[in-house]
Amino acid sequence: MAKSKIRMGMVGGGQGAFIGAVHRIAANIDGEIELVCGAFSSNGERSVASGADLYLPANRCYATYTEMFAAEAKLPAEQRMQFVAIVTPNHLHFAVAKAALEAGFHVLSDKPATFNLQQAVDLAEVVKTSGQLYGLTHTYNGYPLVKQAQHIVASGQLGKITKVIVEYTQGWLADKAGDSGKQAAWRVDPKQAGISCCMGDIGVHAANLAEYVTGAKISAMCSDLNSVVDGRLLDDDGTVLLRFDNGARGVLLSSQVQVGDENNLRLRIFGDKGSIEWSQLEPNSLWLKSNTAPTQLIRTGVGEFCPAAQAAIRTPAGHPEGYLEAFANIYGNFVKQIRAFEAGEEHSNATFDVPGIDEAIRGMAFIENSVIFSQSETKWHDFVISPL
Amino acid sequence: MAKSKIRMGMVGGGQGAFIGAVHRIAANIDGEIELVCGAFSSNGERSVASGADLYLPANRCYATYTEMFAAEAKLPAEQRMQFVAIVTPNHLHFAVAKAALEAGFHVLSDKPATFNLQQAVDLAEVVKTSGQLYGLTHTYNGYPLVKQAQHIVASGQLGKITKVIVEYTQGWLADKAGDSGKQAAWRVDPKQAGISCCMGDIGVHAANLAEYVTGAKISAMCSDLNSVVDGRLLDDDGTVLLRFDNGARGVLLSSQVQVGDENNLRLRIFGDKGSIEWSQLEPNSLWLKSNTAPTQLIRTGVGEFCPAAQAAIRTPAGHPEGYLEAFANIYGNFVKQIRAFEAGEEHSNATFDVPGIDEAIRGMAFIENSVIFSQSETKWHDFVISPL
Amino acid sequence: MAKSKIRMGMVGGGQGAFIGAVHRIAANIDGEIELVCGAFSSNGERSVASGADLYLPANRCYATYTEMFAAEAKLPAEQRMQFVAIVTPNHLHFAVAKAALEAGFHVLSDKPATFNLQQAVDLAEVVKTSGQLYGLTHTYNGYPLVKQAQHIVASGQLGKITKVIVEYTQGWLADKAGDSGKQAAWRVDPKQAGISCCMGDIGVHAANLAEYVTGAKISAMCSDLNSVVDGRLLDDDGTVLLRFDNGARGVLLSSQVQVGDENNLRLRIFGDKGSIEWSQLEPNSLWLKSNTAPTQLIRTGVGEFCPAAQAAIRTPAGHPEGYLEAFANIYGNFVKQIRAFEAGEEHSNATFDVPGIDEAIRGMAFIENSVIFSQSETKWHDFVISPL
Amino acid sequence: MAKSKIRMGMVGGGQGAFIGAVHRIAANIDGEIELVCGAFSSNGERSVASGADLYLPANRCYATYTEMFAAEAKLPAEQRMQFVAIVTPNHLHFAVAKAALEAGFHVLSDKPATFNLQQAVDLAEVVKTSGQLYGLTHTYNGYPLVKQAQHIVASGQLGKITKVIVEYTQGWLADKAGDSGKQAAWRVDPKQAGISCCMGDIGVHAANLAEYVTGAKISAMCSDLNSVVDGRLLDDDGTVLLRFDNGARGVLLSSQVQVGDENNLRLRIFGDKGSIEWSQLEPNSLWLKSNTAPTQLIRTGVGEFCPAAQAAIRTPAGHPEGYLEAFANIYGNFVKQIRAFEAGEEHSNATFDVPGIDEAIRGMAFIENSVIFSQSETKWHDFVISPL
Repeated sequence: MAKSKIRMGMVGGGQGAFIGAVHRIAANIDGEIELVCGAFSSNGERSVASGADLYLPANRCYATYTEMFAAEAKLPAEQRMQFVAIVTPNHLHFAVAKAALEAGFHVLSDKPATFNLQQAVDLAEVVKTSGQLYGLTHTYNGYPLVKQAQHIVASGQLGKITKVIVEYTQGWLADKAGDSGKQAAWRVDPKQAGISCCMGDIGVHAANLAEYVTGAKISAMCSDLNSVVDGRLLDDDGTVLLRFDNGARGVLLSSQVQVGDENNLRLRIFGDKGSIEWSQLEPNSLWLKSNTAPTQLIRTGVGEFCPAAQAAIRTPAGHPEGYLEAFANIYGNFVKQIRAFEAGEEHSNATFDVPGIDEAIRGMAFIENSVIFSQSETKWHDFVISPL
Repeated sequence: MAKSKIRMGMVGGGQGAFIGAVHRIAANIDGEIELVCGAFSSNGERSVASGADLYLPANRCYATYTEMFAAEAKLPAEQRMQFVAIVTPNHLHFAVAKAALEAGFHVLSDKPATFNLQQAVDLAEVVKTSGQLYGLTHTYNGYPLVKQAQHIVASGQLGKITKVIVEYTQGWLADKAGDSGKQAAWRVDPKQAGISCCMGDIGVHAANLAEYVTGAKISAMCSDLNSVVDGRLLDDDGTVLLRFDNGARGVLLSSQVQVGDENNLRLRIFGDKGSIEWSQLEPNSLWLKSNTAPTQLIRTGVGEFCPAAQAAIRTPAGHPEGYLEAFANIYGNFVKQIRAFEAGEEHSNATFDVPGIDEAIRGMAFIENSVIFSQSETKWHDFVISPL
Repeated sequence: MAKSKIRMGMVGGGQGAFIGAVHRIAANIDGEIELVCGAFSSNGERSVASGADLYLPANRCYATYTEMFAAEAKLPAEQRMQFVAIVTPNHLHFAVAKAALEAGFHVLSDKPATFNLQQAVDLAEVVKTSGQLYGLTHTYNGYPLVKQAQHIVASGQLGKITKVIVEYTQGWLADKAGDSGKQAAWRVDPKQAGISCCMGDIGVHAANLAEYVTGAKISAMCSDLNSVVDGRLLDDDGTVLLRFDNGARGVLLSSQVQVGDENNLRLRIFGDKGSIEWSQLEPNSLWLKSNTAPTQLIRTGVGEFCPAAQAAIRTPAGHPEGYLEAFANIYGNFVKQIRAFEAGEEHSNATFDVPGIDEAIRGMAFIENSVIFSQSETKWHDFVISPL
Repeated sequence: MAKSKIRMGMVGGGQGAFIGAVHRIAANIDGEIELVCGAFSSNGERSVASGADLYLPANRCYATYTEMFAAEAKLPAEQRMQFVAIVTPNHLHFAVAKAALEAGFHVLSDKPATFNLQQAVDLAEVVKTSGQLYGLTHTYNGYPLVKQAQHIVASGQLGKITKVIVEYTQGWLADKAGDSGKQAAWRVDPKQAGISCCMGDIGVHAANLAEYVTGAKISAMCSDLNSVVDGRLLDDDGTVLLRFDNGARGVLLSSQVQVGDENNLRLRIFGDKGSIEWSQLEPNSLWLKSNTAPTQLIRTGVGEFCPAAQAAIRTPAGHPEGYLEAFANIYGNFVKQIRAFEAGEEHSNATFDVPGIDEAIRGMAFIENSVIFSQSETKWHDFVISPL
């Protein structure tokens, strides 16, 4: 039988949604995925209209995800969707993912994985029971030079890791007046966003990135979160001091009220022999420093790379790739994971470099820990996976 | 009738080809185009194999472009390809484009448009006679901040334009040993590349960019081309002094032997009130300078933009877009142009900001002029459209 | 009587010393100061030899500072030194400063002002009683763009200040083997350096800079200091979370083991309307950002500046000034302060923008607080001026 | 006898002059030079007043340079000036230098060396006959990383040099209205500036820098100079294509009407193995690139340097040195040259890395060639030393 594109469904991402459009581009880029159906809106008419914009036939545009999973499951194998991309607001992630997995579909979910840690723990059980694949779009891991950074640390070039500084800061929530906007409204609303705004939205990416690149796990935290804008119910800014299980210290700075910061995700890792620095704003540059030799500027596509980084590069040096390509790399690896699954081959997330349910649990624990520990007068607390 | 994706065919771009893959990504990104057929290789078997990799059915993978145009023309209107992307080596561009246009298909061609200026002049006649659309992928015009730069000049913010410095330099052809590589071999071969290597491959992009952003036309040239690597038959380096029809002076620096340069396309435009600077290596930054006030750093997505720039942006500030998105913007505008054509609406290239046959002719004239003038002992020559 | 240069003596800074040479350059640059005497070493012969290198007559090269103050005091007014620059290791600062002030000489001291907070408090009393001038070389305040940054904050351009991030990080102490070197040895020795290495050496500069530019005072701290290199008795790394008396939050990152960091002093200040960023490594650039307009890059000498910044600039735009000129600006302001003193005019440190005994006390308190609070299990502590 | 500071006199540089003040700072920085006399203005009273500002006794402030040389020559050897710094407008350089040399004083002259090439040729004869030392302040050679760049080229790290791009561009003369200002007026006046404005003022620095770093000599030129601002009698902008005697090609871009450019001196040198890039605006960074390995960022003070570069560094890594220190390095080397001269040791300019009369002649030839060749319709002309 001829090889086919992987068939994707989508929940959320109707007209006007931002992250749904990003997911679709990421899915499109490499021509390996076909969007075949969607429940783009809880409003049935709007779901069909959204699907029509995407050139989907009306009969594959569903009013609810429940309906979609049921209907798709009945289609012939070579027609029905194989995985669902979940791009709804946070509070729906769990229910959709659970339903999809139980209906026999793989899931690629936007982050944070769930509304709270308890749901993430519960979801892990569903993943295990269902036997289906579960991926989480920690986009920034998709950059080639992030993968190369991970390789540099793992190869010991930096020596013993002693310190990690990771920042993820933005400025767009500095103005209270903006809270009514479509992108802001749900993020500052505890009912839709959960226990945290800033840490849940972006701080968790920073924590994940630090663990991904260092290969170490956060073992203790000292958290100081703030609601800088008057009247906010959730944090919009915060700093978390970190200890890692390999003995390294760390600082995680996150904010959505640092006026003028665009989408400033920046990672610095120091070892006793060298250090690296990477910034998402110039993602094709990776700096490798020592005390005694010239700094090396590693540029995407110039010189040799580890296999994971090399596989994540599409164009020759000097043709900048960016955020959408990083996102596409997550999708690309998930496609490979699905093909391995279907071929009956080894298909763990680790093998295919796809963030999964383990990262989901650690991310939700990081979020809850940062909020709870911030309320404590005691400085340090062990990192725990202890649902509220 | 339901709105459909635009159906694309491709000539060239078989397994292992670079630019064909780039075109396909550009076509994929926005989900508005469907690749329906191709003549990916002059070898029929390889064409089918290449198509299979792209999930095309064998009956839409043709052994030759002639066969493809004939077969597609016989398909029902709602199935047959609507335009063809030409991604072959230079010496085939003209014949393929001519055949496609005459068979009633629109053409989006990689650059340079043709093998020589005479073919470009002839092609203009074919375009006119056929009434079909013709686009040329001067990719770099697709960047949002290039469009904003054009707007800044046109709006008079820089005052009277006095000077233009444009550089397009690379280093990858510095090593003679590399000439046998797949990407290098045809570029240094007069039979496949034409009269020029460096100016034809990249200098022409620089000339186009300067004209696109300034809105002025090159009126005279003083050319000094070199073959730095021993034994090269074509130029691999050169500088061209320019005069523009608005009185501005210019310098165009191009090279493929500037070791260490990746894909260094950089434009600086000076007026009597201010200046702008843009570099493709950091495409999301545009610098606006004056003598008496702080420099302004315009970042993609921060603040207000002209409509053409705004339409070319997909993600919020700080989520870097790059080369593939710029390329996709050329495709995106061509799609809009095709829809207007099919709707019987105004559909000129100018309206849709798509480089076309006029740019094709000026580009080929620039290439031939730069080579011919370089051989002259006289300093300055008028820019002419005078096929060899 | 003809106007004369200001006559300077020096304690410390003999052959091979680093900071003494820097002070002499700073004193030399503007031609307003003449070095007339010195006690360059506790070894009398070496003191004379050091003085000879500096073209001083042997009779003005003293074996001890006590001898120098006594002998100089007996010279005719138009010959004797007017102020002494103290460039000894930390543990001698207090005794030398006290002796000089009591002998009727002004003092310009390297930082930290004293060995511990108690000495700083005591020194304040001496300064007051003596009526002489006291300056402290917080060098980094001397940069023109730091003064402009202070002006921007004070003028309200950033709105209400909400957050401060200040970093002062180096890497040169990452290697234990270096601890025997001349520059490192005393810094890691509690007997010479005092209670802290990293915070006392550079963290205190960062704290001072944050207070200088914001005009706010640190009111509470959460401190986490580390000795990253095994066997170190003092901190070589640390992070301090801050609260300011204007309600702003802050983070101070300091380290001497961040391998590859040169002398990375960087300040970011965020208000609800805008933000600024300055880095000592590119001291002629000041970034002014907002959420809705292009970033402004303020460059030394381009456009308009506040008087304090303007007075600190020596050359036209594009002729980079650096560390030595910033240092010279501290000396220059101290010279003006001395002239005012001698003319019987108003001569406070504040008027002449010279860091003085108030900064000395706050600096020593910051150092002791950071060490003491780091040992506490309680997160937050009020900033106190409470000698150990 | 005790070692003494070197005694300097100055011609020009009275109240309000810019370059005189810069020379004095450069002379002051290292404490090796004492300013002992001056003819600061052709107006005797203003000369004395200027000297008083500099703490000089009135009897060492002369009304004319002739008077100064005569009077100083009669002073006892240990009092009289040893060299004169010439900081007058261009048209006086020759007469002052000639008189000084013939009176037995060494000369350190601002550039351009003379008003025209004939004077430079004549001056060479005077230098030779007098036996005195002659230095020319090509400031930019004084930067440590420029010396390191020279070393990198000479050591063969870049392979065979194939291409040189050197830019020296400013924007401050873009506004005609500014021509009446003190700094602009003489530069645009043929009677004071000579045959060229832009090339004479800054282009000549660029040419010197290219020859200094590459070790090659310009052998042919294709020149295109412009007067961009209406009514200017001299060039304010220009591009010169170059051929070097080692076979390399080059491009020299210079302008004083590139609005927004501060003092943009930038050098790129390409060999067949690697390339380097240096910009005066960030003088403590030197980039070393290849096609196949990470770019190396060499930072002042980090790692190993050639002796000439090492000797030009005053502070540890991360304490930026700038323009004034580069200038001081020229003075510093000239001081060493004088001491060698007085000690009867080898004292050539080459040995002490001081630009001298050879550079003076080549610089004046470059200026005259660029103007004459620009008027020719023939593209290329040999570089000649042929006074008008």
